[in-house]
Amino acid sequence: MIFANERSGRPNDYEGEAAPPSGGCPFCPGNERETPAPIRLLPRNGSAAEAALDSDWSMRVVPNRFAAMRIEGHLDRRIQGLYDTMNGVGAHEVIIETPVHNARLTDYSERKLQELLAVFRERKADLHRDMRFRYIQVFRNYGHAAGASLIHPHTQLIALPITPRWLEDELHNARQFQATTGRCLFCDLLRSEEADFERLVDQNDDFVAFCPYAAKMMFETWIIPRRHRRGFQFADDQELESLSRILRRALWALSQVLNDPPFNLIIHSAPENWTGSGDLEAVDRCYHWHIEILPRISLFAGFELGTGFHINTVMPEPAAAMLREAAIHPMQSQRVEI
Amino acid sequence: MIFANERSGRPNDYEGEAAPPSGGCPFCPGNERETPAPIRLLPRNGSAAEAALDSDWSMRVVPNRFAAMRIEGHLDRRIQGLYDTMNGVGAHEVIIETPVHNARLTDYSERKLQELLAVFRERKADLHRDMRFRYIQVFRNYGHAAGASLIHPHTQLIALPITPRWLEDELHNARQFQATTGRCLFCDLLRSEEADFERLVDQNDDFVAFCPYAAKMMFETWIIPRRHRRGFQFADDQELESLSRILRRALWALSQVLNDPPFNLIIHSAPENWTGSGDLEAVDRCYHWHIEILPRISLFAGFELGTGFHINTVMPEPAAAMLREAAIHPMQSQRVEI
Repeated sequence: MIFANERSGRPNDYEGEAAPPSGGCPFCPGNERETPAPIRLLPRNGSAAEAALDSDWSMRVVPNRFAAMRIEGHLDRRIQGLYDTMNGVGAHEVIIETPVHNARLTDYSERKLQELLAVFRERKADLHRDMRFRYIQVFRNYGHAAGASLIHPHTQLIALPITPRWLEDELHNARQFQATTGRCLFCDLLRSEEADFERLVDQNDDFVAFCPYAAKMMFETWIIPRRHRRGFQFADDQELESLSRILRRALWALSQVLNDPPFNLIIHSAPENWTGSGDLEAVDRCYHWHIEILPRISLFAGFELGTGFHINTVMPEPAAAMLREAAIHPMQSQRVEI
Repeated sequence: MIFANERSGRPNDYEGEAAPPSGGCPFCPGNERETPAPIRLLPRNGSAAEAALDSDWSMRVVPNRFAAMRIEGHLDRRIQGLYDTMNGVGAHEVIIETPVHNARLTDYSERKLQELLAVFRERKADLHRDMRFRYIQVFRNYGHAAGASLIHPHTQLIALPITPRWLEDELHNARQFQATTGRCLFCDLLRSEEADFERLVDQNDDFVAFCPYAAKMMFETWIIPRRHRRGFQFADDQELESLSRILRRALWALSQVLNDPPFNLIIHSAPENWTGSGDLEAVDRCYHWHIEILPRISLFAGFELGTGFHINTVMPEPAAAMLREAAIHPMQSQRVEI
């Protein structure tokens, strides 16, 4: 559990009427003073220094003002009565993807998506150098029902001082599979889904997209790289280019089939600065980074919160067939590509 | 993962405008033919047989027409390529709590709540007799954001052929604590929260209500019985009476402090027909049934879905203080108690 009192004061575009919050959107050009100074800035024209002065940027990375975690301080693990606690040391960054307030992800060109993925990779690699961090999560909340509080397109990155239990479980399963078969579970998944075809959504030279067999969410879609690497930070430029293509088609297909649905996009990467059981080489062998896209069409109810099971009312095979069909149609965005 | 295609066709009061679905509410008196024949019926006046004929009932238990699980058939565990699968054998019942379409839980009298809890206990004990079931979950989704698709007050009960992973984890932790200390984790929790006071919400002779230290949700509230028993089915009538009192006050406090919020109420009980590691006696010693009330004030975003961590922006101590204050004020429902 992470307690973050300060987050309760953060702005919310979705509360009450559709009017922008007082003072306007903190992520829009001209309101740069509403956010802390940028960690990284991509200029649209001219130099980064000029862009910082005159709002002429195409992307900005800033610390989250309402951070769940703070980069300062020590962990200070301690006991309080029956309970264990530690300070919320970590990092929480916001990648403001574009100056365009109401851009949709499907409005992005392949080049724009590739720039965005390169910024994800760069920020992840940078935070990886801080030895206190055990896990770095890159995630995109698209739409209010997916947990986005501001409309302006942004991705978040949280660095944690511990490895989340779920990731340890995923790693444990991958390691067990490796121990039994001598192979990578994700490499096997990729090959088997490609051969089966019925859950396949799309593929190219470097990636395969499919609806997983045990999909938690309706129309859940995974994108797995063909090249076995434990972390997203190891993807090279060629792979990011391929990823931008398959991701764009997958997002387009989802928006066509489900009418621009809310979703979470999560990059699953191996823990950083691994100190768990087993050496880093073993993690390297068994873990394989990938992207999970989770459409938020239905709500979690008491059954899901009580058991951890999910009830999915659409089988992955018909979901994949619909997405596959939509992915091959050319994108016909009515809005200007940015 | 549970796939339940048929559930996608179920009625939804919350889709589109506030008008009732065509044909009216399937849970309202007069529409009894919209649901399967009742498993259990509490007459308001006269006999159950008469009540079944003339809609004069105060509570009905029916099989869910859009069940996540079906009671017929065999599990048929098998492998499909890389994957394990089994049939969705189980039970899914709906407890229609009252004939009053738009009653709130805080409208219920203590007597009504006690009747409801007694029906939960009876249905759980009945399903427990089917040796195929490993876990029986009783849960109440209150409000659309908590996953309720129909407004008419109803609780659901799902019997599963396997023990959910989360319950196995909870049991594992309780067992570890028992092995180390020789005591029940929940008995210790109860005593320590009562002594600390700062997270306490309410208490009576048989139960203690408090906001847990590591609350996943804002204003999350647990109710633990003083008497150590592994399952809710072992609560006696005296305990159900005490529970109806503390539950009513806790629900009233939540509705006052958070303005009638959506929430999930989940009864956590030990697995049935235990076949896991360790004997039933060990489960009996270490597990302690309890109720979790999870207000649904904020949404799960990519961070939560990617890591399993929850970010909570309200500490449990101030939350408990507000609830404690509200719980001692007399209930002043503006509506007739039912």
